[in-house]
Amino acid sequence: MEWVKKLDAMKAMAQLLRRHCVEATTLAGSGHPTTCLSSADVVTALFFHSLRYDIANPSNPLNDRFVLSKGHAAPLLYAVWAEAGAIPVESLKTLRRIDSDLEGHPTPRFQWAEVATGSLGQGLSIAVGMALAGKMDKLPFCVYALLGDGEVAEGGVWEAVAFASYYRLDNLKAIVDVNRLGQSGPTMLQHDLELYARRFAAFGWHTILVDGHDFEQLVNAFDQAATVKGQPTVILARTLKGKGVSFLEDKEGWHGRPLPKDLAEKALAELALSEGQIALARSLKVQPPTDGAEISLPSVSEEWHRRIEFPRYELGQQVATREAYGDALVAIGKANPLIVALDGDVKNSTFSEKFLAAFPERFVECFIAEQNMIGVAVGLAARGKIPFASSFACFLMRAYDFIRMAGIGMANIKLCGSHAGVSIGEDGPSQMGLEDLAAMRAIPRSVVLYPCDAVSTVKLVAEMAKYQGIAYLRTTRPKTPVIYDNAEEFPIGGLKVLRQSPNDAVTVVAAGITVFEALKAYEALASEGLHIRIVDLYSVKPLDTEALVRHAQQTNNLVVTVEDHYPEGGLGEAVASAVSPYGIRVHKLAVTDLPRSGKPEELMDMFGISAKHIVQTVKRLAGS
Amino acid sequence: MEWVKKLDAMKAMAQLLRRHCVEATTLAGSGHPTTCLSSADVVTALFFHSLRYDIANPSNPLNDRFVLSKGHAAPLLYAVWAEAGAIPVESLKTLRRIDSDLEGHPTPRFQWAEVATGSLGQGLSIAVGMALAGKMDKLPFCVYALLGDGEVAEGGVWEAVAFASYYRLDNLKAIVDVNRLGQSGPTMLQHDLELYARRFAAFGWHTILVDGHDFEQLVNAFDQAATVKGQPTVILARTLKGKGVSFLEDKEGWHGRPLPKDLAEKALAELALSEGQIALARSLKVQPPTDGAEISLPSVSEEWHRRIEFPRYELGQQVATREAYGDALVAIGKANPLIVALDGDVKNSTFSEKFLAAFPERFVECFIAEQNMIGVAVGLAARGKIPFASSFACFLMRAYDFIRMAGIGMANIKLCGSHAGVSIGEDGPSQMGLEDLAAMRAIPRSVVLYPCDAVSTVKLVAEMAKYQGIAYLRTTRPKTPVIYDNAEEFPIGGLKVLRQSPNDAVTVVAAGITVFEALKAYEALASEGLHIRIVDLYSVKPLDTEALVRHAQQTNNLVVTVEDHYPEGGLGEAVASAVSPYGIRVHKLAVTDLPRSGKPEELMDMFGISAKHIVQTVKRLAGS
Repeated sequence: MEWVKKLDAMKAMAQLLRRHCVEATTLAGSGHPTTCLSSADVVTALFFHSLRYDIANPSNPLNDRFVLSKGHAAPLLYAVWAEAGAIPVESLKTLRRIDSDLEGHPTPRFQWAEVATGSLGQGLSIAVGMALAGKMDKLPFCVYALLGDGEVAEGGVWEAVAFASYYRLDNLKAIVDVNRLGQSGPTMLQHDLELYARRFAAFGWHTILVDGHDFEQLVNAFDQAATVKGQPTVILARTLKGKGVSFLEDKEGWHGRPLPKDLAEKALAELALSEGQIALARSLKVQPPTDGAEISLPSVSEEWHRRIEFPRYELGQQVATREAYGDALVAIGKANPLIVALDGDVKNSTFSEKFLAAFPERFVECFIAEQNMIGVAVGLAARGKIPFASSFACFLMRAYDFIRMAGIGMANIKLCGSHAGVSIGEDGPSQMGLEDLAAMRAIPRSVVLYPCDAVSTVKLVAEMAKYQGIAYLRTTRPKTPVIYDNAEEFPIGGLKVLRQSPNDAVTVVAAGITVFEALKAYEALASEGLHIRIVDLYSVKPLDTEALVRHAQQTNNLVVTVEDHYPEGGLGEAVASAVSPYGIRVHKLAVTDLPRSGKPEELMDMFGISAKHIVQTVKRLAGS
Repeated sequence: MEWVKKLDAMKAMAQLLRRHCVEATTLAGSGHPTTCLSSADVVTALFFHSLRYDIANPSNPLNDRFVLSKGHAAPLLYAVWAEAGAIPVESLKTLRRIDSDLEGHPTPRFQWAEVATGSLGQGLSIAVGMALAGKMDKLPFCVYALLGDGEVAEGGVWEAVAFASYYRLDNLKAIVDVNRLGQSGPTMLQHDLELYARRFAAFGWHTILVDGHDFEQLVNAFDQAATVKGQPTVILARTLKGKGVSFLEDKEGWHGRPLPKDLAEKALAELALSEGQIALARSLKVQPPTDGAEISLPSVSEEWHRRIEFPRYELGQQVATREAYGDALVAIGKANPLIVALDGDVKNSTFSEKFLAAFPERFVECFIAEQNMIGVAVGLAARGKIPFASSFACFLMRAYDFIRMAGIGMANIKLCGSHAGVSIGEDGPSQMGLEDLAAMRAIPRSVVLYPCDAVSTVKLVAEMAKYQGIAYLRTTRPKTPVIYDNAEEFPIGGLKVLRQSPNDAVTVVAAGITVFEALKAYEALASEGLHIRIVDLYSVKPLDTEALVRHAQQTNNLVVTVEDHYPEGGLGEAVASAVSPYGIRVHKLAVTDLPRSGKPEELMDMFGISAKHIVQTVKRLAGS
């Protein structure tokens, strides 16, 4: 297409996209039209000039990727994919309806979104993960991420910015839509593009400043970006919120508000297009990826997990579950080349360093920036990897909103939180994961696992890898004895009964470090002729309600739970919630106050979760 | 003291501090000596040259403040305060013991710490909050924050950096101890001080580069920092991890490891001091604040809350609880000048904008950077303010690790999360707070409140302000009818019984939006002759177990809970956990799968928490 005609066609396309956004949000009665209008030109230039994408085959590994970090511009995302031919234009009218996959903010129910966005400041990290996957697989695709200016205030963005330049991700091209206005007022930097540029440049990025409504500048910017080697590029686009509609342009008070019908009509009149202009717009096509690129992606059979050679442990051997996690990563990494590991500068504590030693090319050091680590994992997963990200359990909480969004995005990521509970000892409460079970259970469709010994750990890590979705493993700092035979299996949703007799007074449910307190309590009570049943609830979510109820019913409908976690949202509440409908009485032992520094055994005793407390509780219940 | 002698004294003091750190960690058998050794000279110069502090009176409002963001250098913090005369030097030997307040990482149990640190990357935000309090109160103190280099990778740091320059906090002086080594390897930027400087400068900071082991440079840097106006200052100090001990200096593999006894002796030999040198070191004194500064702090009587003029509502009036939150903020702000409000660019959604309109000088726009917002709130609280920070409930999760640390720090902060649950409707899951009850309940000593109408909201906001500690309020997007009289009181830990009769079949426990579903269900069931008791559990934590048990026992030991939250860690589990020991059966209605966009009423129905589902559940239970 000749240049002048292409320019006219892009102008018409942007106008068409603006029309779709105004119409769809007015029809829906909610949404963010003005934030779409500011980005329409950028998105048009990107899709119909630069992007290489096989519309008929979204899973073509050569496709460029596009991440809409400013998720509230979802109507624009749907509109451009519709005009690109991915979905019928007619479907745009279903925006935000309960029976539509065109949601208020993108989720992967709309498959071209790939990931969920809408909690701002996360899309760049995800794009970074995709770009990293491209580098790992030596694929030539580019990743484009469109950010709003307001979200650049989020620290997670700067974690991603620092990471991308450190790893020289020149296949990453970010665009910031600098429209000056946030939700409730002007942004910090307003239209100071030079200041944005200085910040990105100081963080090692190539920067390009453009008028985001000038197609010639936009096209040149994307062309220039394509040539940059050795560093990521950001295009800083000066735009006007509400661009194209006179009474919306650069005006405050319109964020997140659809136009009422009369104003929508006025807006559409300003955005009018002739039949000819529409035809011209629709003569634009998204270009397919260049043929002939070599693709040698790792191929993995569905039965890969049958080839895992699990590490073997001796019964009674003292092995920290966190160390077994490292062993397990290596074992599954050998059996499946898609396994990658990420860590936030604690790899010698989480033992992910074992994976680094075995597979350095599949290990990603994320430094002390847990939010970006999770975003990168989501991006890697979107490109087919099976990422395991580890840190102290408490420091994963730094990324809780990223994990929340990963849940909404149904991302296939695996998390390991080490140093759970007061049993870490002297480092004190800031380093203790005591709320991670509550937080991770409250992620929809998540799996939450908490092994007590090395054998159950390595088996559960393999289960996590097989599971499609978010799975969380909680590991313990101190060494614990191996209590399971190497042949034992640990399916997700199961439990193990460690002690039982026909006349057990109470069922004690434990997991992780407290399993050993329960076993000590068993011995103490048995010596006095009082028998208890002991359940290792290694699968905290989902949990085996049927088995728990059965055991409880066989033990006077009495359950005692004991956990190295706060009382809220942990093991005890999970059990109480599951068995409560059956009239079973659950008594909880948990860390009921703010802990402090001390020896592990001192702390477990001081905060009420040691064998002594189990014995006292069982005696009280059995006597009543 | 003459200059050369002072230099010698500081050198001796730094050596003395190093000795304390080595001795204390070896005695404790754990800790981070090498990270203390790199900072010892910086801390010595700061405390014995620049800091102005009334050691006898830590609450003197003219005192400068010192925040140790790199909390793992706690032994150094304790050592310098000991040598400054705040605590006995002898007490350093109690480091990390369960009976000592000298914990592995600082908490306010050690009162000179003021706040908890140890989850890296948070101290600067807290220091920013303190500096902001100084500006608000027109006090001349400075705030010093000591950061490690590894933690500068945390995005929260860059949120604080951007915020501090935006608000021109020239009373803030940060020092970065650039010792090149993280926990498990070199940091991203290693010893590239110029690159650090470019980044801070691009973010609007005055930068000073020094050799962090050269007292002349350090003293000059602090002197220069004191003269900088209109912008914050960062001193970038090139240091060596393990400085002063030949076999530790700049060596990997020593992070978080105390020296074994023999090596400790070797180290102490290298750090030897004569009696004369020790005496010279101890001739250094921390200088008190300059006299004569005018202090006119707002004075508040303990009975201030009796003067609150609560907004009044009509029964049946439609008012969103989020709007009532704004009304309440204004009401308590009038009665107490210590109340301040913070928001993250959603003030027109959370309605904190009402406080901005009434008290602009006490409102802090934090832009889209929730982590820093919470850190700033913690800093403001440490300086005596009562900060209320608001955002969408789900976006507060962005700051969960900051909230966790605020809990450990026993910070007096108040949080409001709006837009709870699927009842927000079309914006979709990324904007729905569905895990916030789980997360906020799992903060030790937190209070979690969830009002259903405007009257209960305004009363609870006042209760939050009176409560000393972290309190969380959950508000709802749609308008709900006022059901309580303006005279009604809502103590923390209480509940309200909205419907009861002598022959109720089941107790239905609801809160927030689901109270109205329960009331609808009541009508539907009553029309069929089936009576239920309805409890508004506005205080989710603490909750009134005694009353819940009593009502349940009066209704066949049957409870149905219904909540606009995921099933994990929310209202239902709180209730199940509380009443389960009494053999009461609890049946939970909650949002059991990943929601989507749609109308509020459609979503509440689709995800199982509408009146229809309550009716069905009650009928099933009553019939069984």
